[in-house]
Amino acid sequence: RVEFLPFPVYCRAQPFCTRNIPCAVKLLRSATAGVKFSPTNTSFPCAMMYRVAVALPAAHPSLSLPSSSKDTLRQRSFSPPISARGVRHCRPVVASAAVTDTRSEKVPFQGELLNGKTSFAEQYWIRGYEVEPDQTASVISMGNLLQECATNHAVSLWGKSEELGFAVAPVMAENNLILVMTRQQLQFERYPKWGDLVEVETWYQQEGRLSARRDWLVRDGLTQEKIGGGTSTWVMVNMKTRRLSKIPDAMRDEFLPFAPDPPRFGLGNAASKLKLPELQMPAQFEAPPQVARQTDIDMNGHMNNVTYIGLAMEAVPGDVLDGMQMWQVEVDFKAECMAGDTIECHASLTEIPEVMGAPGGAKAVLHVVRKCTGHDCKELVRMRSVWKPKSA
Amino acid sequence: RVEFLPFPVYCRAQPFCTRNIPCAVKLLRSATAGVKFSPTNTSFPCAMMYRVAVALPAAHPSLSLPSSSKDTLRQRSFSPPISARGVRHCRPVVASAAVTDTRSEKVPFQGELLNGKTSFAEQYWIRGYEVEPDQTASVISMGNLLQECATNHAVSLWGKSEELGFAVAPVMAENNLILVMTRQQLQFERYPKWGDLVEVETWYQQEGRLSARRDWLVRDGLTQEKIGGGTSTWVMVNMKTRRLSKIPDAMRDEFLPFAPDPPRFGLGNAASKLKLPELQMPAQFEAPPQVARQTDIDMNGHMNNVTYIGLAMEAVPGDVLDGMQMWQVEVDFKAECMAGDTIECHASLTEIPEVMGAPGGAKAVLHVVRKCTGHDCKELVRMRSVWKPKSA
Repeated sequence: RVEFLPFPVYCRAQPFCTRNIPCAVKLLRSATAGVKFSPTNTSFPCAMMYRVAVALPAAHPSLSLPSSSKDTLRQRSFSPPISARGVRHCRPVVASAAVTDTRSEKVPFQGELLNGKTSFAEQYWIRGYEVEPDQTASVISMGNLLQECATNHAVSLWGKSEELGFAVAPVMAENNLILVMTRQQLQFERYPKWGDLVEVETWYQQEGRLSARRDWLVRDGLTQEKIGGGTSTWVMVNMKTRRLSKIPDAMRDEFLPFAPDPPRFGLGNAASKLKLPELQMPAQFEAPPQVARQTDIDMNGHMNNVTYIGLAMEAVPGDVLDGMQMWQVEVDFKAECMAGDTIECHASLTEIPEVMGAPGGAKAVLHVVRKCTGHDCKELVRMRSVWKPKSA
Repeated sequence: RVEFLPFPVYCRAQPFCTRNIPCAVKLLRSATAGVKFSPTNTSFPCAMMYRVAVALPAAHPSLSLPSSSKDTLRQRSFSPPISARGVRHCRPVVASAAVTDTRSEKVPFQGELLNGKTSFAEQYWIRGYEVEPDQTASVISMGNLLQECATNHAVSLWGKSEELGFAVAPVMAENNLILVMTRQQLQFERYPKWGDLVEVETWYQQEGRLSARRDWLVRDGLTQEKIGGGTSTWVMVNMKTRRLSKIPDAMRDEFLPFAPDPPRFGLGNAASKLKLPELQMPAQFEAPPQVARQTDIDMNGHMNNVTYIGLAMEAVPGDVLDGMQMWQVEVDFKAECMAGDTIECHASLTEIPEVMGAPGGAKAVLHVVRKCTGHDCKELVRMRSVWKPKSA
């Protein structure tokens, strides 16, 4: 009996496949539900969608192919269980399988404007050094990817300033204006795993006369399942006076055509406008004092925004950090710090606002990150993190 | 007069180009040496090699096309000077240019075995958050990419352990063995810039009965120019006894066919065998004490190797850190540390070994990174960094 599997099998690329190593062999083993097989062709290109035919042996009439279902497909196409002995030991051959049909090529795309140029998306493979011991990407890694996508969006629309090094629109350069992020809120239902393909989409829109808003959506790059989102608030600052500036009309005219209309929101809009309360000191938890490192400083010469999130997390108690997963984080950026500054991180458990719609069993932590000279401390970041049980 | 440029023009992708924004327009402006032009076709696919025809206006008989040279090509194809006013303002039109010929598509490749399967290479775009204020990738970012390439090489040959999470060969899993890096040496003639494509090649080979060696070459992904290299030493450790183990014969038999023969070296072999002297205390420079962070810990549950390099650099004096560029670094990994450990970083200027062949004007720094409980300190990392003037 030769039968086709009723679902396509995705032969994922890196790190599960290289051009010369037939990862499809591993997938076929998985797809055929443990039936040993001999592939008729072992040179399968990577990162392709395949239709798989399986020859079921007459000697085993009870064998049948797995049926199609979303769970089955996900499981089979994403996480082929690879036994400790590996592929080369799958003998004896009791069935044969063939890869017959190439569906589509899957290469991460780089920098595409979408939706009538009103948003921008990129895809990334999750790298080994971006994941934590449980093999899922950290919120820091995800924050970096969101920042990367936003930066490339800005560069693709505005170009780069040779002098400043980062993305700046001509009308901003003429008026000594830069955009500064004052608030960021991220939410992840789940974190991608090592080797997963993630797709980040971002767009900006106006928010009053003084500020702009940038949102993100994060999807599984293969299934398009939404796994997270984010929003952020940006203000114009005059580099000479160090003061807030309104957004120039010329900039508005030039860039609003690239903002979505009607507005789109990466997170529920109601829950993304909450004011963070001040942390009452002394707080319940305090991390050992930190010193800002040279490696914390990004290309703009200041501490990288996501680094603050990592620092704030140092004060989270171990039972939350190890037993739960960060579901959402809101960050207010209040002041900047430089390499060498002494950093204090404090935190206390806090209430979860009803409007957030947090998952059952969630816990919330209120944070402050301060730079201190002796007893003189300045608030750098105020943050609230909401954690859900790892199983939820 | 219509003339072809005598060299191909590479229209680089991200962040300089998106599918819907004709970055080729910017390149053409550069390639035509300041001549204003009107492209006859603005839908140029990204990441392609183009042949460019330029119509020189009769009214300007003195205009001529740039001639071909490696410097010219590099300059023109890599760093199109983008004026503050951007592309949309390049009026009036005094010449016209056309893109006529597509040469090759350029997409970073993922995980290829090369040279008869005796090495493995990947390409990466340098991301915005991987560069320093001077827009070049930090040694930390490069170290992470080398680690990523090595990890994917190991996974592609050995598969992943579902239990341990990282790459482990079947024969290692059966004998409770893991590979531990004890030494790493990296050298960079220059660091790639934001948006550059880098190609990392890696391979391993035997080194005595007890250790294996992994080397790297780092190239410019477009020109194949070598920009750096590295080597590292690995030993087998029995996870149950925590002791060194010899490499099992079965592993040798299975994996030596994938090692290059004759041996290849990512760095000059003589200069990669130097013993690091012990730093005499008190040292000349001491960084403020650091605390190991949760975010320093990688998926193996230990501090990420490259994080030690960043920590050690905290003790480098400002005139070296700001005015020079790290040319080479040798790291001996002596012990591990965990999040929460207190870290001390000390350093002194030291001699440069003759055999290194360091560039003129170079300075060397000897480092120690220790974890301390009160006055009881344990050496984690011994390191020597060699710095060259930024202009060299």
